[in-house]
Amino acid sequence: MEINNIVIVGSGKVATNLAVALKSIEKNILCIYSRNVENAKKLAERIDSSFTNNYCDIPDKADLYIISVKDSAIAQVVSEMKVQSGIVVHTSGSVNISVFNDKFSDFGVFYPLMHFSADKQVGFSEIPLCVEANNTSNLETIRRLALQLSHNVHTISSEQRMILHLSAVIASNFTNLNYVIAEDILKKNKLSFDLLRPIIIETANKACNDSPAKMQTGPAIREDTEVMKEHVRLLGDLPQYQKLYKLLSDIIIRKKRDHEL
Amino acid sequence: MEINNIVIVGSGKVATNLAVALKSIEKNILCIYSRNVENAKKLAERIDSSFTNNYCDIPDKADLYIISVKDSAIAQVVSEMKVQSGIVVHTSGSVNISVFNDKFSDFGVFYPLMHFSADKQVGFSEIPLCVEANNTSNLETIRRLALQLSHNVHTISSEQRMILHLSAVIASNFTNLNYVIAEDILKKNKLSFDLLRPIIIETANKACNDSPAKMQTGPAIREDTEVMKEHVRLLGDLPQYQKLYKLLSDIIIRKKRDHEL
Repeated sequence: MEINNIVIVGSGKVATNLAVALKSIEKNILCIYSRNVENAKKLAERIDSSFTNNYCDIPDKADLYIISVKDSAIAQVVSEMKVQSGIVVHTSGSVNISVFNDKFSDFGVFYPLMHFSADKQVGFSEIPLCVEANNTSNLETIRRLALQLSHNVHTISSEQRMILHLSAVIASNFTNLNYVIAEDILKKNKLSFDLLRPIIIETANKACNDSPAKMQTGPAIREDTEVMKEHVRLLGDLPQYQKLYKLLSDIIIRKKRDHEL
Repeated sequence: MEINNIVIVGSGKVATNLAVALKSIEKNILCIYSRNVENAKKLAERIDSSFTNNYCDIPDKADLYIISVKDSAIAQVVSEMKVQSGIVVHTSGSVNISVFNDKFSDFGVFYPLMHFSADKQVGFSEIPLCVEANNTSNLETIRRLALQLSHNVHTISSEQRMILHLSAVIASNFTNLNYVIAEDILKKNKLSFDLLRPIIIETANKACNDSPAKMQTGPAIREDTEVMKEHVRLLGDLPQYQKLYKLLSDIIIRKKRDHEL
């Protein structure tokens, strides 16, 4: 089966980027549903679709229903939706496919592993799309759609997807927090975060061109206790940062001694 | 004064990248010193310089002596060097300029804020070069050289440089450790680190195009306790990672409540 007519439930960053990308490959977006009708309207106008904030007005004969709302709201949306045909998917990294078990007969997952922005449309061609379905026929249908958007499509089980999501939290959300902490320390000392931009980009590029385990540098891997002591002292009035510095340095030293770095 | 004749003490990644960059702007590298004469020779051949592993053979009338050895070895090198004229600098982020006080009359710091590779020469034009000197005349001389290599030159005191170095450890070394941990978790679950490459690059780019504090996403900032609980459970047999997950999530939640994110 080829998917042509699509309903999107949600109007956030993932829903918006996905809707625009699907429109760009000439899919017909029948309707945008959002609790907030203004948000639904705004997105619908961009992609020439109808919109609603009423579950009863969602067309019930689309080929695909994409639920792209926050994780904790998915079960509620599933319970409210009325669907006569087509496949229902969600886009979450952490919600098990079993959320659909008692409600629908054709369902799956369509998880794009990316940070989307509200104000910037991302090209999908490189984005890993992680797909799953309740049977091989639905999986084939979902994969075919995914491959029209990206050449980076992976069939991933719910258990693997949870691990992948956890890894993305560490490599992306926690990495961003590192940047935030660095910015914070610099600001407190009237230094500009701009100074770190080149090394941040280089670090990300290096890790991605090879294995990050080969790229570890810094005082901890050199076991340079003088420098580490001085850093901990400089973080004296920031106890959470100090704790973090010690823990991360301990992990690096342990991994080095275990020959993992 | 214009610097033309340079001696480099060291043959590691910083020394190599700096030597090649200085040669490319037609500076005359008189000599490479390294404890390991083979390393000295290897670098010297690349830049058409002499080399030695004997302090007595270092030319004593260069315009500039660059000490680019590991932090803990700088004081020892300073005590051994014999210099009749010229300015002596080191390239470290964490060693105070006062290391030169009792030995030389003209000295400074030339700290490039970058991760250098042994096998890949980096273009210097964007690299922040942080300079410091013992007087305004030497500062002017060092700055002029720095500006020939990069348009990103900053006069930074030893105290500020220590803060900058600490921030770079957090934003670069610790960030790389996040990548390592993500890779480790993926490997243990037979998933490829390749899946994370696009989101890692996007996260770094986003933080660098704006303030990272505006870019924080993930379960912690949403205070999605269900997902966080599940992640902590998944890390059950990796106690250091579990501790790290909790600490980083706590910092995000605290910062969000303090309106810093």
